[in-house]
Parts: sequence; structure tokens; C-alpha cells
Amino acid sequence: MDEKSGGLAGITVGETAISTVGKKGKGLTYRGYSIEDLANHARFEEVAYLLIHGTLPTKVELNTYKKRLIQGQSLPIAICRVLEQLPVKTNPMDVLRTAVSTLGCLEPESLRHTAEFIADKLMSFCVSSLLYWYAFQTNDQHLTVISEQNSIAGHFLYLLQGHVPDAEFRKALDVSLILYAEHEFNASTFAARVCTSTESDFYSAIVAAIGTLRGPLHGGANEAAMKMINQYDDVPSAEAGTRLLLEQKAVVMGFGHRVYKESDPRTSIIKPWAKKLADRFGDPKKFLIAEAIERVMWDEKKIFANLDFYSALVYFYLGIPTSFFTPLFVISRLSGWTAHIREQRANNRLIRPLADYIGPDPRPYVGISERT
Amino acid sequence: MDEKSGGLAGITVGETAISTVGKKGKGLTYRGYSIEDLANHARFEEVAYLLIHGTLPTKVELNTYKKRLIQGQSLPIAICRVLEQLPVKTNPMDVLRTAVSTLGCLEPESLRHTAEFIADKLMSFCVSSLLYWYAFQTNDQHLTVISEQNSIAGHFLYLLQGHVPDAEFRKALDVSLILYAEHEFNASTFAARVCTSTESDFYSAIVAAIGTLRGPLHGGANEAAMKMINQYDDVPSAEAGTRLLLEQKAVVMGFGHRVYKESDPRTSIIKPWAKKLADRFGDPKKFLIAEAIERVMWDEKKIFANLDFYSALVYFYLGIPTSFFTPLFVISRLSGWTAHIREQRANNRLIRPLADYIGPDPRPYVGISERT
Repeated sequence: MDEKSGGLAGITVGETAISTVGKKGKGLTYRGYSIEDLANHARFEEVAYLLIHGTLPTKVELNTYKKRLIQGQSLPIAICRVLEQLPVKTNPMDVLRTAVSTLGCLEPESLRHTAEFIADKLMSFCVSSLLYWYAFQTNDQHLTVISEQNSIAGHFLYLLQGHVPDAEFRKALDVSLILYAEHEFNASTFAARVCTSTESDFYSAIVAAIGTLRGPLHGGANEAAMKMINQYDDVPSAEAGTRLLLEQKAVVMGFGHRVYKESDPRTSIIKPWAKKLADRFGDPKKFLIAEAIERVMWDEKKIFANLDFYSALVYFYLGIPTSFFTPLFVISRLSGWTAHIREQRANNRLIRPLADYIGPDPRPYVGISERT
Repeated sequence: MDEKSGGLAGITVGETAISTVGKKGKGLTYRGYSIEDLANHARFEEVAYLLIHGTLPTKVELNTYKKRLIQGQSLPIAICRVLEQLPVKTNPMDVLRTAVSTLGCLEPESLRHTAEFIADKLMSFCVSSLLYWYAFQTNDQHLTVISEQNSIAGHFLYLLQGHVPDAEFRKALDVSLILYAEHEFNASTFAARVCTSTESDFYSAIVAAIGTLRGPLHGGANEAAMKMINQYDDVPSAEAGTRLLLEQKAVVMGFGHRVYKESDPRTSIIKPWAKKLADRFGDPKKFLIAEAIERVMWDEKKIFANLDFYSALVYFYLGIPTSFFTPLFVISRLSGWTAHIREQRANNRLIRPLADYIGPDPRPYVGISERT
């Protein structure tokens, strides 16, 4: 094996028509549209539709799509019973992994429940499952999970806050969902494609992707970034702490990227939203600490902040518990995963690579009484 | 992308010290021991220990390991409550995926519940979960899942049959578990490694692997093979039916292999067990039908029967429901998956490949009122 191919870095393993990531070191397009245009002009539901269906929806298509998303807000009673069994300390990513796996038992993929039908359901379903579980385990409350909000961001904030959300807050969350929606052959998407390549079902692929996104080297990075920001009380301690991490050669979460080499095009979109929320709340401290970390990382190492870093701050200002950050990434990325599962199915070949063997040479069997 | 690299066929993506598959077109070793030696001389528990720990266990180590396996037979009450929510028609693979995901909520990986601890638990746990669910949904029975059998095959047959199993039946199942235990970078193992590469937890990797194994191009093949065998009433209809499938260029399940080119070394081990059970029951019909299919496939296409084909027959003669065939593959392969997760962790790099872009060129955004 070529040393460079560890982790398949830089190795092309297939084709996609869904997105471009990091062409000439930067840049991100979904189905040919720049991420800047989509974040500035579209709503998340248009972007999800675009990713899954290949075209931006007309007004009629978007309205139909939003109606289906609202229909997906309700939870089967069996799901509620299962969620009630999951302890309050459970990692919310494990809650989502289990909820989706259970739904796959109750409403398996079929001619009636097609992949497209399930995909439309899962975004709302994951929001409802997460907040139902949270309300039950923290307040012993059987939360009413039908918000009638016609956006995923609105549905999430409504269930979290208990009222129709502020329009600017909804928009801030919406933009972050757009930015998180799709990213080519990242690890979770690749896991979904590997699963799909065996002709397994839609739920199994999504469950594999959720479990993969969970790791701190992938989706878990936004939570890790927030925990790091939270360690510092002021700008000087953030600067000193970051320098210390660099001296210790520790991984600083929320910085750099396997594919982007010069910058993450999503950072310059999400950072102003973090600033806007900091200003609105008159609470700039976390933002200034974050900027201090970003400045040290750039000055010392020329490593840029990625999407996870300032998304974490947006979520913080929106009052979202840190452990929900990666679940929000799931809820958004469901759209990209769905697009990739469909694409894999349309031109499938079993993904089954090889390994170089570096283990023991052939050796004779030793009976149990002769083993030492 | 090189056309040949579709599905990463023939592409080496990493290193392993766990097994060799198909060197010079055939042959399988686990940690240097030939599959023939292991199937002839070892019990499954020794093989699982070998795969996970790298050496065959001493008597003391094996006894300790078996005690841990017996300890894993019990089910947390929350697992029973969750299993009771899963309808009788659920695919048993979805039951296992959900049970393992739920256990990850109840007993998450930690310094106390290490990967090794969880791995030792999961094999017995999966047997108990599957049979508890089955008894509850088919007979409304709260099955006692502690069999005290000190082998996985014995535990499974005890819970299925309700009594201490016949020694030859236990041995037949044991051999099939040895043969299914490990197979290098197959799709489910690769999915587990992709998941692990993000530094996600042990359960997430296993859940990803279960979902991936589920597909008919992978673990699902043994069930598909049985369904095909069941379609025929006698040898002539099996021969004619197989020829027809070949004429239609249909995929015949249980034949050929991505890596093995000449033969599957496991087939010549499992086939005599199918014959032995057929003779013992004085019921050779299914065996003769299977041999007829195998003969036509070889005569017409020089395609060999793989492990799944005759394993299916062994399970049939043991009275195991067809929908449990792939779950048995899970229970065995947990050992190989565990070995690979540990190996991936010991020398980890995020698995994040690239894709060639074949989608639309960059295009200007179109507002919703202008879309047609």
C-alpha cells in the first residue's frame, strides 16, 4: 500500500454529481450552485430538496415538500416507549441512532415506504425524537412533538423553546443547516455508501452514517470546539491556552480540513451570524474568545477555522445544549446522505477493498493442552 | 477514476494482521492459522479469542473467556422493553441493529465498559436479544435468556429449542460460526473501520457493520440462497431453474466471490456438515437439490459455491428459521469486527476518500418565483 493512501487521503474512489468540495483548495457547490448563493438566498428546505432531487423546487414543489415535513413530525407510540427507556445521560447521537434504527423496524423500507418517503420523514422525525427524549428524561414530560412549523429549523427551536421562534434565530439555525447539508465523500457519507453497496436498506445506511458522524474527528468536532471555547474565561487565557495546545501538538478541534487546504468557504458565511447573535444578546465574550483562538491558530500555524468552530458559537447563542450540536449536523446531513444513497443505488457496485497482510506467517495449529 | 476501481475492487486501502483471504486465488488464515485447522480442531470461542487477542487461549484464558460469555447472556430490563416494541414482522437484522444501538445507550463505552468488555458481552447479548424478541413476538412469552451453556452455539440452540442441544448439532453450528468469523476488508468490516476512523464509539461501529452485513450482496446471501433452494421440489426442477437463471443473467446467490477466484476454502468444510445432517435426518432432498444447483453453476459457468450456500443448508437442517441465518453471521462476525476495530484504533487515520465530480457546472442561483 502506498504510504500516502492512509485513510484514503487524496484517493478518488467513485463519482458523484451532488457536490464539489475544495476545488483549487476552496469552494463548495451543491448541484452546481455556490454555497454562498444558497446560504444567502435559499431556505434549508429548498437546499434539501435540491440535494435529493437535483433541482431547486418550484413554489408548488416546495409547498408539497414542506407539508410532508410537517407530516413527519409525529412519532409512532412505539418510538416514544423506546425513547423513554434511554437514560438521561445517553449521548444524544446514540438516541438518534437508536430512534432511526427502531423506526426501521416499525416502518421498514418497502414499495409503500420508499427511500424518498423515509428521507422526507426522517428530518422531522429526528428533531421530534431528540426533543421528546430530552423533555421526558429531563422533565418527565410527554412532549407534544407536532409544532406545525413549516421549517426544520423552526420545528427544532419550537420544540426546544416551547414557542414560535424568533425569525432571526430561525434564520441563523437555517443557515447552519444549509452549510452542513452535504460534503461529498466525507466519512459518514462514505459509510452510508458502503452500507448501501451491499443492497442493504435505507435505514441501515442512515444508522451507519449517524454512528460515523458521531466521532470527534467528524461531526463531533462542533461539540469538541464548544467545550474548548468554554474552557477559557477571557481573551488572554484563550490565547495562552491555544498556544499551549499547539506546543503540546494537541489536535485543536474546529480547525483545518482534510480536503480544504486554504480555507473553509462555510466559515465566512457562519461567522457573521455568530457575531450578529453576540451583538443582539449584548454578550460578546464567547465570540471574542473564539476570535482569539482563531487568530492564534492562523498566526502560529496558518490553520483556518472550519464550519464546526463558528457553528458551535451560533448554537451556543441560540441556547442549544452542547450535546445537541452534532445531532443538528445529523438532521441537516440527512439530505446529503439521502442524495448519496440514491446515487449509489443508481449505479451500484459492492464496495469491498483489499488489505495488505502484515500478520504472522502460516503456522501449525497448537492444541489447547500445549499452549503456553 | 480508473474504471477498474469501481467498488474498490482489487484496491488495497490499508493493512491488517488479522487474516489472509484468497492468497493465490484461494486460502484463508486467521492470525496465521489455516481455516481447515481451526474448523477441525478448535471451538468457536477459541477462534473468537484468537481473532480479538491475537493468540489462541490457554485453558485458563479460555475458561475465563467462557465465563464472561455466560455473564453476557442476561438482558437489561430496558432492552426487553425495547424488544417488545419491535413487531413480529421485523427483519431480525433490524432487531439486532436496534438492540445493539440501545445497549450503547444503556452501557456506553467507558473506562468501565471498555471495547473488550463490550465485545465479550455482545455475542451472547445478540443471541439472547434475538431469541427473547422471537419468543415474545411469536408466543407472547418472556423467555428466560440465561442458558448457562458455555458456548455461543450451545446458547443459541438452547434458547431456540428450549433444551440442551444435541452435541453434533452444536458442533455443526460451531463450525459454521468459525467459518463466518472473519474475512479481511469485506464491506461490513470496512464500514466498521470507516466509522471507527472518526474516533466514534465501539457500538456505533458494530451497528454500522450489522446494517452493512444485512444486504443480500453480503451477509444476506445465505438467506437468499435458502429461499432459492426452497423454490425447487426436486433435482430436475433445480437444474432447469438454475439454467434459466443463468440464461436470464440473474445473480445466483451463494455463488462466486469478489476475492476468491478459484474456490471458497470454507465450502469444502461446511458441505460435509450439510451432508452429515441430511443423512442423520434421513432427509437428503434439500441436499440433493443444492448439489444439483452447484453442479449446474460449475458445469455451465465454472462458478463455485461459497460459504453462504451450504451454511444455509446446515441451518435449515438444524431447524433454524431462515430469517435467523444472517443474524448468526452477525453473532460470529462480531469477533472479526472487534479485531478490526481494535486494529483501526491502534493506528488510526480518518478514512475520507475523494470523488470525481460529474455533476452540473457552476450555475447562477434562480429565485423561487423564476423556477419552472
